[in-house]
Amino acid sequence: MNKPNLCIAHSGGVTSILNTTAAASIAEARASGYFNTIYAAEFGLNGLIEGRLFDTSQLSDKQLIQLAQTPSSIFGSCRYKLKSIQDDPQSYQAIYQTCRMSNIQYLLYQGGNDSQDTTSKLSQAQAHFDHPLAVLGLPKTIDNDLHGTDFCPGFPSAAKYLATSIQEAALDTWAMSRNSTQVFILEVMGRHTGWLAMATGIARHDPAQAPHCILTPERPFNQQQWLAYVQHCVDRYGFCVVVAAEGITDLEGQPLITSSEQDAFGHAQLGGVGATLSAMVRNQLKLKVHWALPDYLQRSAGHLRAAVDIRCAQQLGQAGVRALMNGQSNCMLGLQRLDDDPHTFTTTQIDLAKCANLEKKVPQTFIEPQHYLLSANAKSYLQPLLSGESTPTYIDGLPCYLQPQQLKLTQFNKALSRS
Amino acid sequence: MNKPNLCIAHSGGVTSILNTTAAASIAEARASGYFNTIYAAEFGLNGLIEGRLFDTSQLSDKQLIQLAQTPSSIFGSCRYKLKSIQDDPQSYQAIYQTCRMSNIQYLLYQGGNDSQDTTSKLSQAQAHFDHPLAVLGLPKTIDNDLHGTDFCPGFPSAAKYLATSIQEAALDTWAMSRNSTQVFILEVMGRHTGWLAMATGIARHDPAQAPHCILTPERPFNQQQWLAYVQHCVDRYGFCVVVAAEGITDLEGQPLITSSEQDAFGHAQLGGVGATLSAMVRNQLKLKVHWALPDYLQRSAGHLRAAVDIRCAQQLGQAGVRALMNGQSNCMLGLQRLDDDPHTFTTTQIDLAKCANLEKKVPQTFIEPQHYLLSANAKSYLQPLLSGESTPTYIDGLPCYLQPQQLKLTQFNKALSRS
Repeated sequence: MNKPNLCIAHSGGVTSILNTTAAASIAEARASGYFNTIYAAEFGLNGLIEGRLFDTSQLSDKQLIQLAQTPSSIFGSCRYKLKSIQDDPQSYQAIYQTCRMSNIQYLLYQGGNDSQDTTSKLSQAQAHFDHPLAVLGLPKTIDNDLHGTDFCPGFPSAAKYLATSIQEAALDTWAMSRNSTQVFILEVMGRHTGWLAMATGIARHDPAQAPHCILTPERPFNQQQWLAYVQHCVDRYGFCVVVAAEGITDLEGQPLITSSEQDAFGHAQLGGVGATLSAMVRNQLKLKVHWALPDYLQRSAGHLRAAVDIRCAQQLGQAGVRALMNGQSNCMLGLQRLDDDPHTFTTTQIDLAKCANLEKKVPQTFIEPQHYLLSANAKSYLQPLLSGESTPTYIDGLPCYLQPQQLKLTQFNKALSRS
Repeated sequence: MNKPNLCIAHSGGVTSILNTTAAASIAEARASGYFNTIYAAEFGLNGLIEGRLFDTSQLSDKQLIQLAQTPSSIFGSCRYKLKSIQDDPQSYQAIYQTCRMSNIQYLLYQGGNDSQDTTSKLSQAQAHFDHPLAVLGLPKTIDNDLHGTDFCPGFPSAAKYLATSIQEAALDTWAMSRNSTQVFILEVMGRHTGWLAMATGIARHDPAQAPHCILTPERPFNQQQWLAYVQHCVDRYGFCVVVAAEGITDLEGQPLITSSEQDAFGHAQLGGVGATLSAMVRNQLKLKVHWALPDYLQRSAGHLRAAVDIRCAQQLGQAGVRALMNGQSNCMLGLQRLDDDPHTFTTTQIDLAKCANLEKKVPQTFIEPQHYLLSANAKSYLQPLLSGESTPTYIDGLPCYLQPQQLKLTQFNKALSRS
């Protein structure tokens, strides 16, 4: 009997646990005996369009374990805005041709809110082709801004990394504050939402503790008020530690930093808000300031991941495969917290219309506006997510990560290949 | 019998294992029974001048263990250039007055090359005062640029953190390289020496591996050659990962970045050398680039420290106390590698004239200039230093660090106090 094949594809910015979900899906699909070959698309949608796939049977059980602890996506991700089938029939034809040639009848597509739009479009395109293709979305984004799921896999680990880092940088800044640096600014990811910035406040119980200030895109930035607050902290505590999301806006709602560069979805590529805030402190308060920009380090920190994040990433990977086998498609799986055990989550089906292209904001009640203290609600939301540690295996002093260069590619659909 | 007192003081930029040495010194001094009280100066030299000291007997044995895993300096450090006794007799008088009032007869002064100049000056000042004060220097700096010691405590942990981070960021950049970021630049500390930048090349065995390029202050930066090399890597490997020390210089030997607000060409800059290099790639190669600036995160990453670094930090802390008890002073203790077991180090006495104010450069033979591959010498130097992991205790998902605000201060010498 000719069994169908399954394909995994990644989309959008990577996380430190995307491979963990992939490894769990591959293991679950292998164990099920339902599929013949389990593929992974090279660079997400690109690989499907160009027929460039990894046959994951090349990964031994031992390598699957190594894959699960490797951050980023070993198969590559994409920033690819799929147009409607009317506007771009060629891409859809190419994807379906790849799937037909490789007998892929099931697709697990993992990504953020833009990517779930792709899940939806690919699912609906099924009607136009004679090859069966069930498409299921899995959530993923350190931004944590997807609706319908308690949290987005990748967020807890990034939040744990940043909350740890800001505690460490705060100790450093305090130690230097007598003759040197008195203000430290950490610029974190978050274009439109401040989930990561907010999360760094988790260990803060009174206004004297760092981070003294948390700036999110949900609250307009008032320069004069902010500078006065920074000065107040320095006067009172001897130092001031600030966390700022990259996408904070001024009082008119315009991003504090804009750039002419745009990504494939038309989003402005932000960056440099830490430098801008530093310049304000230096020039107007005449205080010495340091700033840090962890950039990719925050979302690929495989060396410091949250145990709950890993567990849920595996759970989603397994549940995704089972859902496809059970005939579910054209939806996204989300995570739902159990009330009686907030560290345990179940998977649920989310209507794509309720998450694709939509952004979940940080509730206004989560951060008290005067001293930037987190509310009890915010803490009870965050605490279970950040709990538990998991460190990778080390060899010769460095984490033992699988490398994409170790994988062999299979080329289908050659006419459309880029090479 | 009136026993003498001991004081610990920190100077210069902090590290993730400075408190480890302090905790070991305190434990050793307690166990010896030789001293009455073990003090630590608040903000190093500042505390000695102003009579602001921490009585470390307030730290329980359990807190000493917590101190040992806390990054930065719990007592505070200083950037204080002590002038000669002829030019600034008041500072010396104040320091000796504090020591007399608190009966401090022994001082452990831990810092980098500038700080060892202070060790030397304080030692020599002894002749001018009727209070006995034996001063011993201990090495410390993530820059690793002190002569006379195999390595500087703090460097191995910072190097391990950066080498891990660049591997993680490289996986991220590769995954995004098809439609998005193809070049990633990590700006690391190192104003005059490139030890940290160099160390990130430890896991790289062929030109295809990241980091593809390592820029250090020891080698002038050739913009056109560099851009050609970046383009070559992107063409050949699909992406290019660069590590740049903050202090790289142009072909005339001038720093590429002269201040945080201007680049070498006088253009206003948002950020440091990472931002400048990114702009070159973006503007001249038209490639999408991301950059990161870990800043304090790299030197205070208590969550990822090297086991050898911790062990040697403890060894130095203990040896420093014993050396003072044995009548040694006016020198610095260094670390010497055992030939037959490169993971084991002994402590040695270093003449202050051989380390104060001097900078040890990265040997030219350590980095091959064409592909930036590390030599076998460089790897055999680095490998033992980065080996072994140590993770702190976590509570509620975050490392359990001691906080400076938990300590009570004792004020001597009130007339000179700043408060």
